[in-house]
Amino acid sequence: MPHTIDAALAEALETLKEVSTNTLTTQLYKRGMSSMFINGVHPLSPGAGRLVGLAYTLRFLPKREDKMAAVSNSSPDYPQRRAVAECPPDYVLVIDARGEATTATLGDILMTGLQARGCAGVVTDGAMRDTEAMVALDYPIFCAGAAAKNSHITHYASELDVPVACGGAAVFPGDVIVGDADGVVVFPPEMAVELATQGAEQELLETFIQEHVAAGAPVAGSYPPNDETRAKYEDWKRLRQT
Amino acid sequence: MPHTIDAALAEALETLKEVSTNTLTTQLYKRGMSSMFINGVHPLSPGAGRLVGLAYTLRFLPKREDKMAAVSNSSPDYPQRRAVAECPPDYVLVIDARGEATTATLGDILMTGLQARGCAGVVTDGAMRDTEAMVALDYPIFCAGAAAKNSHITHYASELDVPVACGGAAVFPGDVIVGDADGVVVFPPEMAVELATQGAEQELLETFIQEHVAAGAPVAGSYPPNDETRAKYEDWKRLRQT
Amino acid sequence: MPHTIDAALAEALETLKEVSTNTLTTQLYKRGMSSMFINGVHPLSPGAGRLVGLAYTLRFLPKREDKMAAVSNSSPDYPQRRAVAECPPDYVLVIDARGEATTATLGDILMTGLQARGCAGVVTDGAMRDTEAMVALDYPIFCAGAAAKNSHITHYASELDVPVACGGAAVFPGDVIVGDADGVVVFPPEMAVELATQGAEQELLETFIQEHVAAGAPVAGSYPPNDETRAKYEDWKRLRQT
Amino acid sequence: MPHTIDAALAEALETLKEVSTNTLTTQLYKRGMSSMFINGVHPLSPGAGRLVGLAYTLRFLPKREDKMAAVSNSSPDYPQRRAVAECPPDYVLVIDARGEATTATLGDILMTGLQARGCAGVVTDGAMRDTEAMVALDYPIFCAGAAAKNSHITHYASELDVPVACGGAAVFPGDVIVGDADGVVVFPPEMAVELATQGAEQELLETFIQEHVAAGAPVAGSYPPNDETRAKYEDWKRLRQT
Amino acid sequence: MPHTIDAALAEALETLKEVSTNTLTTQLYKRGMSSMFINGVHPLSPGAGRLVGLAYTLRFLPKREDKMAAVSNSSPDYPQRRAVAECPPDYVLVIDARGEATTATLGDILMTGLQARGCAGVVTDGAMRDTEAMVALDYPIFCAGAAAKNSHITHYASELDVPVACGGAAVFPGDVIVGDADGVVVFPPEMAVELATQGAEQELLETFIQEHVAAGAPVAGSYPPNDETRAKYEDWKRLRQT
Amino acid sequence: MPHTIDAALAEALETLKEVSTNTLTTQLYKRGMSSMFINGVHPLSPGAGRLVGLAYTLRFLPKREDKMAAVSNSSPDYPQRRAVAECPPDYVLVIDARGEATTATLGDILMTGLQARGCAGVVTDGAMRDTEAMVALDYPIFCAGAAAKNSHITHYASELDVPVACGGAAVFPGDVIVGDADGVVVFPPEMAVELATQGAEQELLETFIQEHVAAGAPVAGSYPPNDETRAKYEDWKRLRQT
Repeated sequence: MPHTIDAALAEALETLKEVSTNTLTTQLYKRGMSSMFINGVHPLSPGAGRLVGLAYTLRFLPKREDKMAAVSNSSPDYPQRRAVAECPPDYVLVIDARGEATTATLGDILMTGLQARGCAGVVTDGAMRDTEAMVALDYPIFCAGAAAKNSHITHYASELDVPVACGGAAVFPGDVIVGDADGVVVFPPEMAVELATQGAEQELLETFIQEHVAAGAPVAGSYPPNDETRAKYEDWKRLRQT
Repeated sequence: MPHTIDAALAEALETLKEVSTNTLTTQLYKRGMSSMFINGVHPLSPGAGRLVGLAYTLRFLPKREDKMAAVSNSSPDYPQRRAVAECPPDYVLVIDARGEATTATLGDILMTGLQARGCAGVVTDGAMRDTEAMVALDYPIFCAGAAAKNSHITHYASELDVPVACGGAAVFPGDVIVGDADGVVVFPPEMAVELATQGAEQELLETFIQEHVAAGAPVAGSYPPNDETRAKYEDWKRLRQT
Repeated sequence: MPHTIDAALAEALETLKEVSTNTLTTQLYKRGMSSMFINGVHPLSPGAGRLVGLAYTLRFLPKREDKMAAVSNSSPDYPQRRAVAECPPDYVLVIDARGEATTATLGDILMTGLQARGCAGVVTDGAMRDTEAMVALDYPIFCAGAAAKNSHITHYASELDVPVACGGAAVFPGDVIVGDADGVVVFPPEMAVELATQGAEQELLETFIQEHVAAGAPVAGSYPPNDETRAKYEDWKRLRQT
Repeated sequence: MPHTIDAALAEALETLKEVSTNTLTTQLYKRGMSSMFINGVHPLSPGAGRLVGLAYTLRFLPKREDKMAAVSNSSPDYPQRRAVAECPPDYVLVIDARGEATTATLGDILMTGLQARGCAGVVTDGAMRDTEAMVALDYPIFCAGAAAKNSHITHYASELDVPVACGGAAVFPGDVIVGDADGVVVFPPEMAVELATQGAEQELLETFIQEHVAAGAPVAGSYPPNDETRAKYEDWKRLRQT
Repeated sequence: MPHTIDAALAEALETLKEVSTNTLTTQLYKRGMSSMFINGVHPLSPGAGRLVGLAYTLRFLPKREDKMAAVSNSSPDYPQRRAVAECPPDYVLVIDARGEATTATLGDILMTGLQARGCAGVVTDGAMRDTEAMVALDYPIFCAGAAAKNSHITHYASELDVPVACGGAAVFPGDVIVGDADGVVVFPPEMAVELATQGAEQELLETFIQEHVAAGAPVAGSYPPNDETRAKYEDWKRLRQT
Repeated sequence: MPHTIDAALAEALETLKEVSTNTLTTQLYKRGMSSMFINGVHPLSPGAGRLVGLAYTLRFLPKREDKMAAVSNSSPDYPQRRAVAECPPDYVLVIDARGEATTATLGDILMTGLQARGCAGVVTDGAMRDTEAMVALDYPIFCAGAAAKNSHITHYASELDVPVACGGAAVFPGDVIVGDADGVVVFPPEMAVELATQGAEQELLETFIQEHVAAGAPVAGSYPPNDETRAKYEDWKRLRQT
């Protein structure tokens, strides 16, 4: 039973499409939270745009021959298949593969199904297969690599919509997920509005500072900005808004 | 809600105290089950005897500062503490630590609590702390090593009595757990009677074969036994029983 | 002494150029074979096309100063050099580098020699050097990465045309090798005709299903196809063939 | 130039011989310090007693043939040899080996030299050689394993008495080092008196609690102690002191 | 206090822009130096050109909460910030991150500062953040990956301009650094003139040999060249120069 | 076809029983040989004595379901079984398990067969099973750990008496194998007499030096010995021989 996305959260998610994972990691760090980054995952097709949505989870356990004899892995009741059918629109499917990068978690047909249903994207600390076809989907897919081995060789899909571990981070159903070229960050939805607002402001300031430094200003005094730099920034921001 | 241990299961568990993990792994392999071994765990105090019992599970996720602010890790409601209070007598506490061997999952006081309550032992793919004191408990503890770091530095105890991954194997609540010097094996309770019976028979046969080979018999013909060897075994067994 | 490629095998290899490693892995899995995938290797130049051919093998051992003093590593008799001269046309050179990704196994001149002689491509679980020049060759090269260190720093080329381990899979001389964006699959030549035929059929069906799902059909009923979907597929296939 | 050990520090070090690394890790964690534990090192001879002293450091870099040609590794000027000659009595030699467990950092003769000069012991995240002889020394040596390869095969001893990394922890010259069966903890000398006092008190309390729990008291209420348990502890302590 | 770059060294560095890391690794190997390659780093933006310069170093230790409380990580005095301000023009900033690829060492603003000041580029065995922006800088950046986590989560910047370990190689201040698609090589500045001259000659010869082999000449006799091939090369070189 | 052990070699092997792997590694290093040490293996039962003998090899490849269907793994023709039957007396069975420490290579019955036939011992970079029973054999067994999983779960025994890789070292049939608490060293039989003689001399000298240093002599001047120390050593040696 996923969270409802109310208007404020929807707006925050929209704003987060412009906020980098670096900025969010920094904002979380300032609040004493250092464990909110999924390690070792990267966008399969860098041009497909940033990933933003709430987490819907699928948990893979190591394969168990006795359990797998009891359920066909292509049955609509198998949790992997249910994940593709039940992950709500605007949600991100987060798959716990225990960091096993030599085995795929999904192929292109199931991925197409998620995209067709309006899901926001996928993150896994495992691999993907049919990656050539997946790149063609132009869809935000974050994973630890490509591998042809199907998930049944290694995994047993055990549960949906439960807390999972992914890339060394804990992900709870309904957490906010944001991904870009540097990886994927996760935080509770209660923080979305605040992080979106302060993150967007930090982004703007850093855009100004980077231009400033590129133009020859020394880093000291610019980053973090002293009073003089900050005044220049306010001018730049005013100009930009008009 | 753990399984009830009925008389047949209780007797099988008793028999399994004499059956090695090698024998059980071989028996499982013959039945098409190759994924039932917990990798990388060993007995902390080799003299403490073999581990046999049903699985009661505790799942650690990567630490999450926001969740951990909401519950004291020394509160009786924290799942790690509940595991120590609620793991039933004759059950084995199986702790999923995601293979993190640089952090402890339990210390000696909590371990003493488990032992005092009659639990059968503990298995984790994480580490233990206070291991000098733990060795003195003379209790079947299987882990991936010793480390002083407390679990809160790395983990968040999220759930009890759910399926877990441990050392590359899936463990379900109520599974049979058997451990010795070679590590820990897991299988569903429905198989306990059959594996106990056939495992004990295999043990006896191999005891005979090893004596036979040690006395100079060639391996071929002895292992696996041909008709002649098997006849000698039957004689040996008859003699032994009288 | 490599296998002869007869007409049936040649045709199967041609067909396999259109069959993905995912499809082949799935077909092998259905036949009880889960160990036929080379882990951790990827195409150096993704645009260079799919890799298909029979295996000709080179085995690297860890370097041994005493053995290496006895043979110049640039002599035509050194097995690495012989591999480049003797790998037959249409064969794939498979190099066992024990997964050592920080050292190269070949450079661009030797690679050019293989390409000029009509060899089908190269696979190694080690690295390549001169990779910029190799990418320019537009040749199917699968490896675990790029590294400037020459092979003599780490390896001793010991044997040709023997069974090898590569990326966790056993490869026997004459095995069929197929590689694409997801990695490399290996199977015995006796299976080539059957896998080519059934693989091509599976590819066609999955192409249809993916279009179907992209157009909004639910995954359940489409994949695997129920009778209705299968009937639609037969229509689609008929239309496509005309 | 190592720190002087004044009377208060000397007394604290004496007290710390009775405080476990678990207790110290917990005390440090309560003060917001989670990075003070050296991962993956264990006592070579468990019976040799606990390790307590201040850090004197030796830093190994990866070997560099040009630098190593300029200095004989058996010269008294080579930093590894200087470490053995210059590490002050009551100091612990902490060796940064970048976690390389397949190569030794010291052999038994140099170790004997350190022991003969009254040094408190050795810690390294690398290996030791001549470990059979070292065990016979009955000396507190903490390392990541045993290996016959001499340090020159892998390392270049570059500097003494500088900050180092060891087992994932930063160690500064003069830091307090404490080691037992669970590994090695490090903290600044300014904290020694406070940690010794509060650590010893925590040890005593936990000794009481463990006895209490072993006698059947439930963990909840005992650990952490509620008012009733704490009152019993005070009685027990009073009795014990008389 | 970095080395001065005199005219001969400056000219050698210019020549080295045309010499590949493979050629340099081979030249070093011929001189008995096998440990001069930084493992596991690759160019962030392959189109940004080759990296050539002298080493200026920054050393990260594991984070230490007590040390980090004493200095703001955004203060101009923090060594990471000083590195960006003090790395001389035409020098390469080499960052020792102990191979930790899940944490960034620099972000785009600090990188922009280095580029604006005319530094030659950056190498680290850690990660970078803001990598999308960094790619846009078109600047020679070599790292082990992308990650959003800021350096303070994992590291403490301890020292500048000291010997460091990077990707398994020792790097001394003032060493020559050369990087291309195959990674990064390091050697002492005293060898620069000789390696530039002989490396450029080897490059030319290998260009000829590759064309020769691509045109169908067998590898044996061509590589290494026999008298006939060498004569052809001399002709080709003469022609080319006119 | 193993080497014959002539009288000189037999005497050298006898002498090598008193020479440590450290001494041998040092002697090999002095001769320019740094790659002769098997990493990560240790004696299963430290009291069982040192391992000395010539190498007889068994090579495991990754399992291949098609090959394994063709031969029973308990048939006398299966190479693992043949190894146990054919390894000559006084030879060491060296098993290449590709460093896979989660799977056993032999169990106690096959090990008993080797011991009964007078083989010198076993080395593998894989694991052993039935280790409790193996320890009771009091036999020189060197491995990477204990694990109950039988070899067929992971491996296919492919060849006997061929060059193998073991723990990062190349081992050729007939190589001398020496093992003690620090691991296992390997070298060609042509070097046996020289290494035995010089190794024994080095051992004696180091025994003297260690006593000397333990008695308070400074390391400088003692190790390596200057003229004065060497004179004392000659006296000590003379005394000792009488």
